[in-house]
Amino acid sequence: MPQPASQSAPQPTSVQAQPCPLCAGAGGRVVFQDAHVRVVHVDEDPALPAFYRVIWQRHVREWSDLDEGAQIHCMRILTALERAMRATIAPDKINLASLGNMVPHLHWHVIARYTWDAYYPAPIWAAPHTRAEDAPTERLQGLQWLKDQRPQLEERMRSACAEAPALLE
Amino acid sequence: MPQPASQSAPQPTSVQAQPCPLCAGAGGRVVFQDAHVRVVHVDEDPALPAFYRVIWQRHVREWSDLDEGAQIHCMRILTALERAMRATIAPDKINLASLGNMVPHLHWHVIARYTWDAYYPAPIWAAPHTRAEDAPTERLQGLQWLKDQRPQLEERMRSACAEAPALLE
Repeated sequence: MPQPASQSAPQPTSVQAQPCPLCAGAGGRVVFQDAHVRVVHVDEDPALPAFYRVIWQRHVREWSDLDEGAQIHCMRILTALERAMRATIAPDKINLASLGNMVPHLHWHVIARYTWDAYYPAPIWAAPHTRAEDAPTERLQGLQWLKDQRPQLEERMRSACAEAPALLE
Repeated sequence: MPQPASQSAPQPTSVQAQPCPLCAGAGGRVVFQDAHVRVVHVDEDPALPAFYRVIWQRHVREWSDLDEGAQIHCMRILTALERAMRATIAPDKINLASLGNMVPHLHWHVIARYTWDAYYPAPIWAAPHTRAEDAPTERLQGLQWLKDQRPQLEERMRSACAEAPALLE
């Protein structure tokens, strides 16, 4: 439900007493941005070096708060990121998710997943099945390789995103 | 990466020795379908009575395997479901996710979330913070209310999906 702006009863958004963190800050290292979206690298979990977010610049709560032109633009950015990942780091699977329970400002998680990663095949929000210090050699090598590929991956992401024509100027 | 059909080396998809379950079966109770997608109710977790999936009829692995017309159609179905949820069951948040690590056949989870639910604000793939038998009254009432609303919700979903014009006939 759209939240009424002037109402004293508790609203879902009032879970955050703080200002919205995705309005107050970038929410990560910015890889690409235009007037509508920004793409940030998420450096919150060393077990997931190829984790990005697409953040809608304007504060909206749900995907369905966007009109169709805005949705298509957002979708093109997600697709551009997926294709850049597939071309450079060949994930075993890509995970996309728009949750926002903690931070209800529209953002999409875009996560490259590998059969050797610490959560696979579970979603990354499950408990990791092995501790970091028990990581097998394959995983340690994979993590290092992903870090090494990052400049090339992000350059490709920037090119692919820049080619996504905005429908909503 | 597209999966080679005939190769003896382990492939990501060969985690499934079985045929793809979303090719072999509906994957849930079908609420709506057209030539391209089906919407199913997911009855796998009694703590989440308003959990649906949008399954692409054809076997594709990743979102970026779809061309833009197909993506727009899929996006319109997701939006139709969100709007039907907002109009009938007013979730505190809607969660969308395309993961597919276990079943790499494109499908989107569409989940109505409430501040009173057993996982909130965590993603549903985290451990529930309370056991079912410890559910507070508010949650039990909410779960029953959602079940009671289901016919009305699904009727609205069907209407909204049927109004999403397919771009890819």
